[in-house]
Amino acid sequence: MKPALIGIDWGTTAARAFRFDASGGVIGEHSAALGVQKIEGGRFADALKALLGGKIPSGTPLIASGMIGSRQGWLEAPYLQCPVEFGAIARALTRVADPPLAIVPGLICRDADDVPDVMRGEETQILGGLEDSGERQLVVLPGTHCKWALVEAGGVGTFATFMTGELYSLLREHSILGRLATPAADRAAFERGIHAGLRTGASLLHALFSARTLALTGELAPAGVADYLSGLLLGAEIAAARPWIERGGARTLSITLIGDAMLCERYRLAMAIDGIEARIGPVDAAARGLWRLGQQAELVR
Amino acid sequence: MKPALIGIDWGTTAARAFRFDASGGVIGEHSAALGVQKIEGGRFADALKALLGGKIPSGTPLIASGMIGSRQGWLEAPYLQCPVEFGAIARALTRVADPPLAIVPGLICRDADDVPDVMRGEETQILGGLEDSGERQLVVLPGTHCKWALVEAGGVGTFATFMTGELYSLLREHSILGRLATPAADRAAFERGIHAGLRTGASLLHALFSARTLALTGELAPAGVADYLSGLLLGAEIAAARPWIERGGARTLSITLIGDAMLCERYRLAMAIDGIEARIGPVDAAARGLWRLGQQAELVR
Repeated sequence: MKPALIGIDWGTTAARAFRFDASGGVIGEHSAALGVQKIEGGRFADALKALLGGKIPSGTPLIASGMIGSRQGWLEAPYLQCPVEFGAIARALTRVADPPLAIVPGLICRDADDVPDVMRGEETQILGGLEDSGERQLVVLPGTHCKWALVEAGGVGTFATFMTGELYSLLREHSILGRLATPAADRAAFERGIHAGLRTGASLLHALFSARTLALTGELAPAGVADYLSGLLLGAEIAAARPWIERGGARTLSITLIGDAMLCERYRLAMAIDGIEARIGPVDAAARGLWRLGQQAELVR
Repeated sequence: MKPALIGIDWGTTAARAFRFDASGGVIGEHSAALGVQKIEGGRFADALKALLGGKIPSGTPLIASGMIGSRQGWLEAPYLQCPVEFGAIARALTRVADPPLAIVPGLICRDADDVPDVMRGEETQILGGLEDSGERQLVVLPGTHCKWALVEAGGVGTFATFMTGELYSLLREHSILGRLATPAADRAAFERGIHAGLRTGASLLHALFSARTLALTGELAPAGVADYLSGLLLGAEIAAARPWIERGGARTLSITLIGDAMLCERYRLAMAIDGIEARIGPVDAAARGLWRLGQQAELVR
């Protein structure tokens, strides 16, 4: 069956392609370690062909989101300024002529101090993860660089990036704290870390050291250090994001988590400990978002 | 000339030995990459001999501070609980019989949540860096793990560790931020980072990302990323330490910086931007502290 649309979630390290039927159902999926960082000499068309199993189907519209639209990607799709409606994103696709590939622009916003923040790919996942894009709500996308996005007026109002995932990896792999940790899952240590993180306030640089001192004094088992640290960082992130959560008034804003299932569950638990209820969104948010943008851009009818 | 005392600042990666004359003047100095981490099979006596140039002078008292007194060191010198007077530290030396080496204990304190913090070696530098141990004051020791110590009542009242230096190294060497940075000194970017860090509040995990986004939008040159990041972390540390600074009442507490001269100067500048005046202490604080403890412990008369 000839697909109605092919959507590609094309990131830094990997790419995933979805073949859609005329009603938006996924009828095929391919993935490969063909992220933007891995493609040399601008050979993006070859990479796309390889991703799709050796052939780019002629006449099928293609849409891609993620780092493929960055300066290092196939063709730069300039950032759109927030607040922005999803319809405006769909109208601003950057086109590669051959093959007929439309690239979704990333988003940029600025805080009160005029410091910029950016996303690429997450805007598509946000749209795909929504049940109702009219409702004012928060969408949180855990990962290397966790994004918190305020969705309102049928688009993305503003957002903020937290380097929680990258910092956790750095501390686990390269720091004195990681050297103390033995690999094990320790739910109690994770929850203890969350509590510590939530009360950390401005002193994260200090609080991190507690993973060492508690292990040193025997108050935290080596098997718990990694999960304590993970909880500490998640708690600190949630505490820092509280102004966002409370923006909806008395924490009534609905919150959707989108991303890796296990990571979303960790965030859900950490939020619950802080008295915040979050739902875990659809696992196929990227595919759904690509389909919705393809429809709004009239690549499919 | 036979020394009256030999003092050793013996850390994780390196060791420095000072030969003192009878009035505490340094008449010889040796250093070697013979830190505790590098000594295998407990061969500390051999390492000490090598550090001192092949021979441990017989009849000369020896005193050492730092990680040599940790569980991984020569002999564990248990932590003393803060608040503690310097005299009590001198009375609690742990003795190696042969050679006649006295090891200075580290310090432990607990915060309001009963979370421990520890130091080893810094207590000696603090004592050595003081002009007047009776005056209530702050001593800050920049480094991999920066220590802020409140000195009062002739001893260390309490202290806190900030992992600023280690985090800076991790981010420079292993993170996406480091990949953006080109090596260069950029004073304006450093000062800009300090301002950003001082206003960061609880959101350091978010603020770190600004080193990337500002570079991405061309608002920060690649040559400025490293210094911006350094300023951001120092600013965040100083902001987090403000309750300490203000503890003395309206920032009247005198502040002494002890450590690497260039790093101390960076802290001094960052503090000045926040309206806080700090003096840079003596460069030989470790040697002076070892001498003073040796006197108080009556190793020399």
